[in-house]
Amino acid sequence: MEFAMADHTPPDTAAYGPTERTVPTRSRDRASYDRETVHAILDESYLCHLGFVRDGAPVVLPTLYARVGDALYVHGSTGSRPLRMTGEADPGLPVCLTVTHVDGLVLARSAFHHSINYRSVVVHGTARQVTDPQEKNLALDALVDQVVAGRSADCRPADAKELAATAVIRLDLTEASAKARTGGPNDDDADMGLPHWAGVIPVARTYGAPVPSADLTDTVPLPAYLTPHA
Amino acid sequence: MEFAMADHTPPDTAAYGPTERTVPTRSRDRASYDRETVHAILDESYLCHLGFVRDGAPVVLPTLYARVGDALYVHGSTGSRPLRMTGEADPGLPVCLTVTHVDGLVLARSAFHHSINYRSVVVHGTARQVTDPQEKNLALDALVDQVVAGRSADCRPADAKELAATAVIRLDLTEASAKARTGGPNDDDADMGLPHWAGVIPVARTYGAPVPSADLTDTVPLPAYLTPHA
Repeated sequence: MEFAMADHTPPDTAAYGPTERTVPTRSRDRASYDRETVHAILDESYLCHLGFVRDGAPVVLPTLYARVGDALYVHGSTGSRPLRMTGEADPGLPVCLTVTHVDGLVLARSAFHHSINYRSVVVHGTARQVTDPQEKNLALDALVDQVVAGRSADCRPADAKELAATAVIRLDLTEASAKARTGGPNDDDADMGLPHWAGVIPVARTYGAPVPSADLTDTVPLPAYLTPHA
Repeated sequence: MEFAMADHTPPDTAAYGPTERTVPTRSRDRASYDRETVHAILDESYLCHLGFVRDGAPVVLPTLYARVGDALYVHGSTGSRPLRMTGEADPGLPVCLTVTHVDGLVLARSAFHHSINYRSVVVHGTARQVTDPQEKNLALDALVDQVVAGRSADCRPADAKELAATAVIRLDLTEASAKARTGGPNDDDADMGLPHWAGVIPVARTYGAPVPSADLTDTVPLPAYLTPHA
């Protein structure tokens, strides 16, 4: 299939690159370093897969992220292993942060030309712990608002004990690339007459109606920022 | 927030572990090594994030996978960098393969207790190129069927040239862990009276009606295995 393991990114003049490791070996026409393209893909999600190296081996963990300008923030317990690693490593922890949207399943007449419509961003860089209290608060608000816009203003902020238990790391958006596939199947001319259905099955991440907590009193209405979900 | 960067996996007697690197430092009660749990999470998707180390730095790429028994398969062009690395490295390429489902956004009265309902699997191991032609064909069929069950029997199989251009790597499911969060927010008792809405917004990956390719003739009907999507 076409949606196979390959590196990210192509030639393009732009904000975030290209560097040797963001220029992909395959499908260079699908990649971009454009800042707006990268931001748009990042802003549509909140779940990333963060990779780092531990004892020489790769580790990939799902976690939340927030974008604030040209910085990405990730948080974790101060006791968690990856967060301790950013603290231990003086020059920071080399990471790769990847965000992927699946937009469609592409069915071609041939197995080889099956593919996935997708948009993804890969960010390489060094993660560093945020020590400035003001930046840390801003990042924690951004992490809540990345998931539900407007929510950070409508909940109790972290108290001193919670803040002390939470570490925030920053990854600057300096080496980033976007990659995308759109459209229908690209079958070979010789396969056009084959009796196999060809086309695209759209895929999306969708949201159901909000389910109130069992212990929520009737006096608390659904807030306006959640009505798009209702 | 609770859904923060932390390691995977807990204490449990089971199929796939535990090992030092699959026992998480945080939320051990959310983890499992049970083979059926791991398989169920893997079988519900086809998109993974695959991590490996290149020049000492982590790389995380989105790609398709298929599960066949206790093996995972990933494929790519023989010319792509990660695939060349599995070929070059005699003992194989150390990888981490992660699959994550987002099931809900958990909104608590406090910023700190916001979370995500999710299910994820993290697999550590060594990826090796598949050289046996029979296993390679089986893996390529499985990659198509992982995306749309039944599809591999209803398309043109890869020809010799396409097979030569495609590399398949196998990752055995020997060191794997599942982790999940379910349920509503876990607010502190002291926060129960706060005037903030609390609950869960369900999240799912959903599929739209199949869109036929513009060049598909009317004589090819929608196959039965796609009617759940229609």
